[in-house]
Amino acid sequence: MKDLLPGWLHGPAPEGDVVVSSRIRLARNLQGYSFPHQADERALEAVITKVENALKKTGFTLKRLDGMAQGERLLLVEQYLISPDLLKNPSHRGVMLNQDQTVAIMLNEEDHIRIQSILPGLALHEAWAAANHIDDVLEAEVDYAFAEKVGYLTTCPTNVGTGLRASVMLHLPALHMVDQVKKVLSVLPHVGFSVRGIYGEGTESTGNLYQISNQVTLGLSEDEIIGKIISVTKQVIDQERSAREALLAKESRLQLEDRVYRAYGVLSEARLISSEEAFRLWDNVLLGVNLGLIPEVSAEQINELFFLIRPAILQHLVGKDLAPHERDYYRAEIIRKHLKTKRG
Amino acid sequence: MKDLLPGWLHGPAPEGDVVVSSRIRLARNLQGYSFPHQADERALEAVITKVENALKKTGFTLKRLDGMAQGERLLLVEQYLISPDLLKNPSHRGVMLNQDQTVAIMLNEEDHIRIQSILPGLALHEAWAAANHIDDVLEAEVDYAFAEKVGYLTTCPTNVGTGLRASVMLHLPALHMVDQVKKVLSVLPHVGFSVRGIYGEGTESTGNLYQISNQVTLGLSEDEIIGKIISVTKQVIDQERSAREALLAKESRLQLEDRVYRAYGVLSEARLISSEEAFRLWDNVLLGVNLGLIPEVSAEQINELFFLIRPAILQHLVGKDLAPHERDYYRAEIIRKHLKTKRG
Repeated sequence: MKDLLPGWLHGPAPEGDVVVSSRIRLARNLQGYSFPHQADERALEAVITKVENALKKTGFTLKRLDGMAQGERLLLVEQYLISPDLLKNPSHRGVMLNQDQTVAIMLNEEDHIRIQSILPGLALHEAWAAANHIDDVLEAEVDYAFAEKVGYLTTCPTNVGTGLRASVMLHLPALHMVDQVKKVLSVLPHVGFSVRGIYGEGTESTGNLYQISNQVTLGLSEDEIIGKIISVTKQVIDQERSAREALLAKESRLQLEDRVYRAYGVLSEARLISSEEAFRLWDNVLLGVNLGLIPEVSAEQINELFFLIRPAILQHLVGKDLAPHERDYYRAEIIRKHLKTKRG
Repeated sequence: MKDLLPGWLHGPAPEGDVVVSSRIRLARNLQGYSFPHQADERALEAVITKVENALKKTGFTLKRLDGMAQGERLLLVEQYLISPDLLKNPSHRGVMLNQDQTVAIMLNEEDHIRIQSILPGLALHEAWAAANHIDDVLEAEVDYAFAEKVGYLTTCPTNVGTGLRASVMLHLPALHMVDQVKKVLSVLPHVGFSVRGIYGEGTESTGNLYQISNQVTLGLSEDEIIGKIISVTKQVIDQERSAREALLAKESRLQLEDRVYRAYGVLSEARLISSEEAFRLWDNVLLGVNLGLIPEVSAEQINELFFLIRPAILQHLVGKDLAPHERDYYRAEIIRKHLKTKRG
């Protein structure tokens, strides 16, 4: 099982009660080659070869998407190591991964090179340091497409400049319960940040997970961008924590305990469970764990569960192809075992 | 806790997977005294004294309702030892109970004397034998109101004759699930039986519990009445069991397991639970236990739970007066403890 969970998941998670993960992405392209959507096979292969050679001494390994089974590709998507876009045309595409999977370098996605660093909790400085280090290693070996006045050149103009996207994934169940999540998040686009719900319709999130990222990569330094997003994230964290404290106040505490324990009860005992329902219940149990209301479940367990309920990871755990209704059965079984094995 | 559960609950329960309990009731009145609704205090007291004296050597004890706290009276109702009607005017009313609470004799309810015998499972012959024995003991000591041509005289004409009502309480969840419960039960009124849902609207039952009893007490012998109700009950048992087997067939088995285990999960973990919801979940868990799907719960545990969730019993368990919202809290706590303490 541990092999199917992303390596980056296991590590300290600062502000982990609200911040699920932090991610830095740097978009880079090689001088003298067309951007991927216009490049021929020779050029795409040249990108892969050049990057692989440049990182020879760093302990990164290349996984080519061509020749890889679709199930394994989807596994990488569910582990947040590659984007779904990379699967659209897998030939001459690949990803380079370091050993603990905290850095993943996508090759020939929208840009030739996308260096991504992901860490649990609020750890943008650390993620930036890791991505920046690989960027330096690469830059010493290859020629990046770069223009003096604007910075790094990218396929999409919105990434021109630093090529940096910094993002955090936040769990905001209490703000949702007190009906404040829209109000709190609606401010962000006006001050330069994008917000999107994860697994929801539009800006709503079914699991109360929201991603905040910078909109612009031009005109600010990397440190300024990261400083700004950390500052705004801390404000949201404070508001979520205040909402949680309010919910823990005497009048509503029992309702809250009841809600999270019912979710725990169903998650622990159901024999058939859809991905959507599992996600919704996970959301409630995670809140319970983070508030110290469910000592039966550790933070590690519930964070791992977020991945175990996903179709491709689930299919790998079971070890065979599953029809959708079979997934519901095995998902329930795996959740149950996972929650029960580790109990005190 | 054991003291709050009715004594009759603990015993063998034949056909206990479908039949919750069997009850025999004999209506009797004393010669020379007005029926209770027209009797004066002196007459009502005479009834109590005569019956108490007649049963001096049998190990029965008298509980007078006058002077008893209302909570204790309601406890007797919830234990099925007295009827709610006996509480309407508690003065000069009482009940005599044998030690294992399998026989309860209500004094000055609708009739002077109502001998009731209740046993778990399908045990009408045994219940009849117990009630009949007490009836003989009484008849040797007191003069019953009796008319040669019609039999025992009672306040309500429908009870004249044998004064016998035989009833069984059935749990019919599978017939409900396959939408056959109405069809199966609608036949009974045409062949001389009354059917009513327990805790439901009209003939519907929220907990899938139904009581079947004889409509007429005149023109048939006691053995004939009991024989007929046993025969019709066995037919309903067969139909419920067939429906259960159909539900356990491969296609629907998982749905059924999921349903009963979800109920078990919520019942085991909720922190606030209403009487109605607890009853609905109890219904599903009972089916699971009777089908051998939930080895974590014993038949004894789930049968006891049926009583523990009731307001007066609950209040006695907690040991203080409870507002309705407090009941939901303590009910959840007691259910949780009861289900968990006894686990393998």
